[in-house]
Amino acid sequence: MRVFQIIGYHNSGKTTLVEFLAEELKKRGLKVGYIKHDPKGKGITDKEGSDTHRVKNYTEKTALVSPTQLTVWFMKDFKLKEVLKFFEDCDVVLVEGFKGERGFPKIAVGDLESDTLREEIVLRVKGKDDFYGVLEWILNQI
Amino acid sequence: MRVFQIIGYHNSGKTTLVEFLAEELKKRGLKVGYIKHDPKGKGITDKEGSDTHRVKNYTEKTALVSPTQLTVWFMKDFKLKEVLKFFEDCDVVLVEGFKGERGFPKIAVGDLESDTLREEIVLRVKGKDDFYGVLEWILNQI
Repeated sequence: MRVFQIIGYHNSGKTTLVEFLAEELKKRGLKVGYIKHDPKGKGITDKEGSDTHRVKNYTEKTALVSPTQLTVWFMKDFKLKEVLKFFEDCDVVLVEGFKGERGFPKIAVGDLESDTLREEIVLRVKGKDDFYGVLEWILNQI
Repeated sequence: MRVFQIIGYHNSGKTTLVEFLAEELKKRGLKVGYIKHDPKGKGITDKEGSDTHRVKNYTEKTALVSPTQLTVWFMKDFKLKEVLKFFEDCDVVLVEGFKGERGFPKIAVGDLESDTLREEIVLRVKGKDDFYGVLEWILNQI
């Protein structure tokens, strides 16, 4: 891993240079990473057409570093089990979707019909009146 | 780490339930993670006011998992050296900004004036005519 820094004043064209370099390095078969400092926390990056969004597509990984959060994009397909490795220090992980995954207790919202999932559904939620019941149930599990 | 899945049809209110649970669990001092499946890759999450954006602020970490990319938000302040650990398998890492960091070769874009950085600046880029020179220089370093 070799690290090169691109520095300059605001609007000096740093990201334009990064975009050029990332595209050319990728063309040559190199695995490119991109880390962008966002000291004001204003970076919008999942918007189509933004410069960072374009650069991201030439990289293996892109990170945006602001004072209150780090965002990392990994440009590949992950399985849920691989994603969970990032969450090992959390007490509770709420997973939304992934109906096809087996082995985790499932809370069904609305009138989901599924014969195959029936045995994994531990609770059914019809509306907001049921929310505190779900919270209590989770708190009893941990 | 305990994992709970929230499942249901599109627009059934899954994220509304997750937002309620994340806020209440955080209030009780628990470290909450949130992993959302985005099978169509349409999730926009750094937009102020989107539901996922709101949930994120109650979590330690949030992930959005689409078929082509994984996005992970870590809700804390990271140093550049900690961020670089995610990039160890990259050949080249382009770091934009972080003028205060020492020890990495720096490419200055525009007319950046800095006495303290002078000895770390290896190249100066005035415009697009200089881009191929930067590329060649980087390729010679790796």
